[in-house]
Amino acid sequence: MSSFEVPEVSNKQVIFKNYVVGKVNDSDLEIRTSQLRLELPEDGTNDVLVKNLYLSPDPYMRSRMKEDYTSYVPPFTPGKPIDGYGVSKVVLSKNPAFKEGDYVTSFTRWEEYSVIPGGNGLKVIDTSESVPLSYYVGCLGMPGFTAYVGLYEILKPKQGETIYVSAASGAVGQLVGQLAKLAGLYVVGSAGSQQKIDLLKEKLGYDVAFNYKQETDYNAALKKYCPKGIDMYFENVGGKMLEAVLDNMNKFGRIAVCGLISQYEKENSDGIHNLSRLISARITMRGFLQADHANLQPEFLQKMLGYLKEKKFVYIEDIDEGLESAVGAFVKLLSGGNVGKQILKVATD
Amino acid sequence: MSSFEVPEVSNKQVIFKNYVVGKVNDSDLEIRTSQLRLELPEDGTNDVLVKNLYLSPDPYMRSRMKEDYTSYVPPFTPGKPIDGYGVSKVVLSKNPAFKEGDYVTSFTRWEEYSVIPGGNGLKVIDTSESVPLSYYVGCLGMPGFTAYVGLYEILKPKQGETIYVSAASGAVGQLVGQLAKLAGLYVVGSAGSQQKIDLLKEKLGYDVAFNYKQETDYNAALKKYCPKGIDMYFENVGGKMLEAVLDNMNKFGRIAVCGLISQYEKENSDGIHNLSRLISARITMRGFLQADHANLQPEFLQKMLGYLKEKKFVYIEDIDEGLESAVGAFVKLLSGGNVGKQILKVATD
Repeated sequence: MSSFEVPEVSNKQVIFKNYVVGKVNDSDLEIRTSQLRLELPEDGTNDVLVKNLYLSPDPYMRSRMKEDYTSYVPPFTPGKPIDGYGVSKVVLSKNPAFKEGDYVTSFTRWEEYSVIPGGNGLKVIDTSESVPLSYYVGCLGMPGFTAYVGLYEILKPKQGETIYVSAASGAVGQLVGQLAKLAGLYVVGSAGSQQKIDLLKEKLGYDVAFNYKQETDYNAALKKYCPKGIDMYFENVGGKMLEAVLDNMNKFGRIAVCGLISQYEKENSDGIHNLSRLISARITMRGFLQADHANLQPEFLQKMLGYLKEKKFVYIEDIDEGLESAVGAFVKLLSGGNVGKQILKVATD
Repeated sequence: MSSFEVPEVSNKQVIFKNYVVGKVNDSDLEIRTSQLRLELPEDGTNDVLVKNLYLSPDPYMRSRMKEDYTSYVPPFTPGKPIDGYGVSKVVLSKNPAFKEGDYVTSFTRWEEYSVIPGGNGLKVIDTSESVPLSYYVGCLGMPGFTAYVGLYEILKPKQGETIYVSAASGAVGQLVGQLAKLAGLYVVGSAGSQQKIDLLKEKLGYDVAFNYKQETDYNAALKKYCPKGIDMYFENVGGKMLEAVLDNMNKFGRIAVCGLISQYEKENSDGIHNLSRLISARITMRGFLQADHANLQPEFLQKMLGYLKEKKFVYIEDIDEGLESAVGAFVKLLSGGNVGKQILKVATD
């Protein structure tokens, strides 16, 4: 095909401007529009061109805005679009594993159309399951798998124990609570608004929940809501909440360290002063990433699809529409303004 | 027996005066002498009267000087003798499990003679093993078992890994290093004097060791001495050292939290600011107490006695003599002035 025959599309992108210290502002990201030629090289690189349908703003992405971030993914590159989990539709494919029209989960860029080199990381979605596509970046995607791994692999719950979950109505927390309830636990959560607390207690299966912005003496709140002490903590926030949890943990308590969202935007993170509790209560504290447990993916997906069909859990999403809403959605997520899993719907199909 | 026939002995005691905040001083403990009648009640309480031969000043005892200490042992009682591990000789016994002349390990009081209610916690020492009696409060006692449990049960070493041990020449650390070497690890230690560093490298099997009072940039020191990063940390000190270790831990690193001696005498303990490393490096941090693993005691004793006979490890002691040296020995221990396991020899036999 010669170049003048190749169709072009307008491609809006969310550009990462520069490394951020402190609070992320709208001005740290920028929407830019360029033209994209809908073509792929014939050089055997197996690239796939996708149209992005749903993008997933996730708290861990805040860490990637730091210049000195070292983890399993590198920091974002200034001047380039940010990247993250998504659900996309294949437009063109040079990779025999994917064909035009396939719906796929992806690690893609925040833009309308992306070329995925080699088709790396794409997985075809079985649309016969009749599950909303956005769930594949939520309860059936990375956040869901994080909840699954954290609860079953890291915390290893025993029936009758008390679990406490912070950021409990978030993408991960809402699932941890419901899975914990299915495992026969006493489930306690905290979140930052009355609306979220109502959700936790009325829809998400939490036995009790409290608003940490109102009950600011965390120690007293945990004593009140966890009358038998805390056996397991699903840690999403860090800081002063972690100190209060340590003080209220039962002997042989376990902490799954999933995220520390209260700390990501602090220039100097809070110091934790009572790690001596690790010894006196013989606590195990373990940081984890879902990506290390990929061998559990098939059983996870099968189990969660089963639960969904049996209506054993619900999943609350907070969907913003259009790539031009991306910056606002991300900033909202970091300040806890979202109710349920934050989703960015980029296109209908 | 009527009372005038009962022999009396003079009984020096180390009295705990009151709860201590900050540094322990000589004046926080007091030597008092009382008279003790060498008799036991005939009321079926199975008491045992022992003469204390060796007492064991241990860092955890500092925690018991705090009024709000909550753990598996209560705080000391003001006005009463302090208690701790010891090796004693049975003088009188109403308990059929012990007879006069038996050497026993004990949880006893810091005094010359003690009545052990019901003989609780006493264990007869098999003197046919020809091991110095003081070793039963050292490499064959609580510190030895702490090293054993921490290394094998908590850290679970794999050949070729790097282990770093703080307070490396202390009662526990010197054994961790030698056992780690037997397990095929690269063994790095730190301590607070040149004399200790020489010991570590020349006698205690450490591959490298550094003086944390001279190399005060802990981060740089750990980078230098652990060129392949740290896979396991046997934590005895806490504070800034823990932060530096977290920054230098390899993926899937493990931390056995045994003690935090740098923190015990601080009114406000240091905050740990980089727990985000738990996530990015997927670190497991686990507090432990040897007492929870009592089922391993028989295999521990058998293995360590075997190693001792085969001269597979050495054990360095720092022995002070006489109960009147007790206060000085304890204060010395807390400031790191001891070289090797601090022992208080109360009587020869």
